[in-house]
Amino acid sequence: MSEKLEASLEHKRHSLSHLLAAAVKELWPAALLSIGPAIDNGFYYDIDFGDVKISDADLKGIEKKMAHLAKQNLTFERAEKKIDDAYKEAAAAGDIYKAELIHDLKAQGETMVSFYTVGKFTDLCRGGHVDNTNQIKPGSFKLHKLAGAYWRGDEKNKMLTRIYGLAFETKAELDDYLKMMAEAEKRDHRKLGKELNLFIFSDLVGKGLPLWTEKGSIIRRELERFIVDEELKRGYHHVYTPDIAKVDLYRTSGHYPYYKESMYAPIRIDEDEFMLRPMTCPHHFELYRSQPRSYRQLPMRIAELAKLYRYEQSGELSGLMRVRSFCLADAHIVARSDQAAAEVNGALDLIEYVAGVLGFAANKDYRYRLSLGSRADDKKYYKDDAAWDKAEGVLRQVLAGRSVESYEAAGEAAFYGPKIDIQMKNVMGKEDTAFTVQYDFVMPKRFQLSFTAPDGQEEEPIVIHRSSVGAIERTIAFLIERCGGAFSIWLSPVQVQIITVAEAHIPAARKLAEAIKAAGIRVELDEANETVGNKIRKAVAEKVPYMLVIGDKEVNAPVLSVRDRGSDQTREIATADFIAEVKDKIKNYK
Amino acid sequence: MSEKLEASLEHKRHSLSHLLAAAVKELWPAALLSIGPAIDNGFYYDIDFGDVKISDADLKGIEKKMAHLAKQNLTFERAEKKIDDAYKEAAAAGDIYKAELIHDLKAQGETMVSFYTVGKFTDLCRGGHVDNTNQIKPGSFKLHKLAGAYWRGDEKNKMLTRIYGLAFETKAELDDYLKMMAEAEKRDHRKLGKELNLFIFSDLVGKGLPLWTEKGSIIRRELERFIVDEELKRGYHHVYTPDIAKVDLYRTSGHYPYYKESMYAPIRIDEDEFMLRPMTCPHHFELYRSQPRSYRQLPMRIAELAKLYRYEQSGELSGLMRVRSFCLADAHIVARSDQAAAEVNGALDLIEYVAGVLGFAANKDYRYRLSLGSRADDKKYYKDDAAWDKAEGVLRQVLAGRSVESYEAAGEAAFYGPKIDIQMKNVMGKEDTAFTVQYDFVMPKRFQLSFTAPDGQEEEPIVIHRSSVGAIERTIAFLIERCGGAFSIWLSPVQVQIITVAEAHIPAARKLAEAIKAAGIRVELDEANETVGNKIRKAVAEKVPYMLVIGDKEVNAPVLSVRDRGSDQTREIATADFIAEVKDKIKNYK
Repeated sequence: MSEKLEASLEHKRHSLSHLLAAAVKELWPAALLSIGPAIDNGFYYDIDFGDVKISDADLKGIEKKMAHLAKQNLTFERAEKKIDDAYKEAAAAGDIYKAELIHDLKAQGETMVSFYTVGKFTDLCRGGHVDNTNQIKPGSFKLHKLAGAYWRGDEKNKMLTRIYGLAFETKAELDDYLKMMAEAEKRDHRKLGKELNLFIFSDLVGKGLPLWTEKGSIIRRELERFIVDEELKRGYHHVYTPDIAKVDLYRTSGHYPYYKESMYAPIRIDEDEFMLRPMTCPHHFELYRSQPRSYRQLPMRIAELAKLYRYEQSGELSGLMRVRSFCLADAHIVARSDQAAAEVNGALDLIEYVAGVLGFAANKDYRYRLSLGSRADDKKYYKDDAAWDKAEGVLRQVLAGRSVESYEAAGEAAFYGPKIDIQMKNVMGKEDTAFTVQYDFVMPKRFQLSFTAPDGQEEEPIVIHRSSVGAIERTIAFLIERCGGAFSIWLSPVQVQIITVAEAHIPAARKLAEAIKAAGIRVELDEANETVGNKIRKAVAEKVPYMLVIGDKEVNAPVLSVRDRGSDQTREIATADFIAEVKDKIKNYK
Repeated sequence: MSEKLEASLEHKRHSLSHLLAAAVKELWPAALLSIGPAIDNGFYYDIDFGDVKISDADLKGIEKKMAHLAKQNLTFERAEKKIDDAYKEAAAAGDIYKAELIHDLKAQGETMVSFYTVGKFTDLCRGGHVDNTNQIKPGSFKLHKLAGAYWRGDEKNKMLTRIYGLAFETKAELDDYLKMMAEAEKRDHRKLGKELNLFIFSDLVGKGLPLWTEKGSIIRRELERFIVDEELKRGYHHVYTPDIAKVDLYRTSGHYPYYKESMYAPIRIDEDEFMLRPMTCPHHFELYRSQPRSYRQLPMRIAELAKLYRYEQSGELSGLMRVRSFCLADAHIVARSDQAAAEVNGALDLIEYVAGVLGFAANKDYRYRLSLGSRADDKKYYKDDAAWDKAEGVLRQVLAGRSVESYEAAGEAAFYGPKIDIQMKNVMGKEDTAFTVQYDFVMPKRFQLSFTAPDGQEEEPIVIHRSSVGAIERTIAFLIERCGGAFSIWLSPVQVQIITVAEAHIPAARKLAEAIKAAGIRVELDEANETVGNKIRKAVAEKVPYMLVIGDKEVNAPVLSVRDRGSDQTREIATADFIAEVKDKIKNYK
């Protein structure tokens, strides 16, 4: 059923791109059309307007004409032409883009091409429309933006004007989508990052390399310390290893030249070549290998807040979501294979705990994906069918015993084994892998990892690769968008904002600030000579969890007037109680 | 007086190198001599032994012969020869090294050369000896090691055998020196780092790139958190900025190509060239410049635990002291020039506090050096005489008001201004710069830093560059050598070692370990089936601050038997009191 509904929506979207083109040709007869497909949330058409400059202001007029056409109950009529005739006509009419498309179809062996006519407008088209424009509900579509697009996506070609439209089954659905987009835009971490002064980018430093301001750094440091402390409690060994290493290390691991495309170019130092590290595993294996190991030491959980470097194309970079250098809360658990299930469960326990603290709910915000290999693909996956069967079995069984929803995906494994991906939904409902837990039976061989078993024999361990809070940058981007910048108290850069009513209250306010600071709470004092209303508006805009207004009453009585974030009321509380309340919330990651 | 004494000691050392050569020629007449100077702690001679292999075992015999010669009351007799005659004789005798030396002297314009004869041995020599060997006190010298040395230091030449000797005025002074060397060797951080399992190096990862084990990482993390927390308390903004940046950033700062020799080669990413950063200043300036700034925001203290990369020659690398990548506790204070003195004082207050916590005493372990520029050297130092005068004046005045001893050194400033170097003594008494505080009046111009003054005008600030705890790697090396691996309790990787007497005591020991761990104390439990004596010896070797032995008595009574590090006695204490004691020491950085 859903299948059919979507197909029909795609037909509507495609039909709308014809109406868009028809409207444009009525308004600008000299405009040259190229292609106009349906997309995820609507449709677009790429058009050459010649010397005419089209702006957002023109979209309303085009949209109005489209709506007018749709109301005419027009049918889509199909006709076929011999391809050579079609080419000649397009060329004669100066329709250079259509002529080129027809030329290419001929080169692919086509002999006939189809055209669709709606009202007075005819367009080269393979088909897939509504029968009649009355199937498009009034108000269910909207032109929403203009963009430049090179003809055929090639920057050597001419830049055409792309007009994007949104289209849904009903006006209500479109309205919902617009509301969601507006909300997402308000919560966009790049926008909030600037407004709340959390991070910046600098052209001189380079693209994809964020510089964290004081405030953003507070969030990052709190998050990093939280995860390190939690992992230490759970028996991880937290280590520091270098961010560069000889290329030989990645040759041993097999990452080089396999992952070469996402690595940066080597740096020559004396006689050796070094790389910015794209992953931490081989470093941790070197630590493991530095001593003979006994079964008594397993499982050995080696963790690190590791800076990693991976190449991303300039156009792919996006705020903190896609960067060129990121800090991964990474770990490698070296274990006996009979410890694998317990260790995977332990890693998922940690992930669920951490996700909970950060406000991500299982089954609502995230679910698990079991990413499997393929026995047939020896190129993409290490060949060892028995090992794959066993590893996939372990992960499948672990997931069966947990309460978080999961599904399986073929061909999504790492080359060295299957994995569990934690799939997180963003504000727009789009799912992305946030963290992973991987079962690895290949690296132990490559690095000749071993341990002495109780019988004195040397045995080969397995390795669980896992991240707990993922890449710090990306997780903070998720966090910002999820809370719209209103961070939990423990993560808030400023936890308490003190606001003075008049100059006379400054000494008392300073004393109070000192007392709050001494309790380990991040407090700021706004002494500026402005109205209380203004100061409150500023603190509200900065989404500070607590505001304390200090006037005559507060100076003369041992109670504070607290305004909590999200409330426009104040409450009274004794200073000591207030400090205890905030400390308690911070301690409990509220 | 001291001057004369040292000159005379140098004569003795040089005379001993003649006696060394004389002894060698008696024992191995075919040996060919090259050069034999006096050095810091004694002397050496580089000798070509032909096919004969000399080992440490031979040193005793040579030394005995030298002592025998010294006892003969031999005088040093000078004689001169025409240089051409001297060359002919050396060449005829097959003395190829001496012949080459004489040849070079002639090329430098010499016409005569001098020879010194002691007993039956004559050597080409410029002079500087004792008059009589009876001036060399019995037992005041010792041959202590062999090394390889290329003739004239050129690896294309033949490798000669270098015999090193130690020599002092008296046997007592030699003994003191030997004792100090033995102590330094025991405390060598490379040796202790291995014994205590703090860090490793891996050939696959690369030279000069330490990998910190779990235990070493604990020390590093505690130290890092301590310094960050202390700086936050003192009003620093702690930030995170990228470890790489475009070369353009260093062109703007003027570091490139000025410091190019100590930078690594650029990495090309798309159309840009990036570098591993050798310093943090330009990154912090980009943060400062990201917003308009007001005088109200100054001083702005921007701090970071920053990973830096500087090229060191392979032969210069040494444990954690000299590495290719290090983490600097760095900061840049942007201030009005009338705030400079207060900010430099604040930085020195912090440094003295931190040094104190780490156990380094002012005037004993470190003193200050005021490193000045030179008005005459426009190439090495930025030309602005008035600015230099002012900046040096500020630093001089600050030092005059402090209790730590200081001295001045010309020509040791940075190119952008004068600095105060904190000169730290190592175990051998050698002084090295551990941290610095620099006054910079050049970078603000290069980066066009500015702030709005109270009158609304834009003004240029000055910058104080400073490190507080220096490079984490090097500071930990100093720390290890200073405490010989017996770290303060708060830094100790394992703070409490629990030792069970028999299997029956394991459950009680585990319960105790849980209670201690829950109090935030790092505890380990040795359940191995070994004798208590063995387990204690292991914990003593690991320099654990507290050992708790759990036997019948401790299981049945609510008291613990504590053995403190350095003591061979145990004391009794209630569990709760013990936990409170350790927690209190950790909290107070004891």
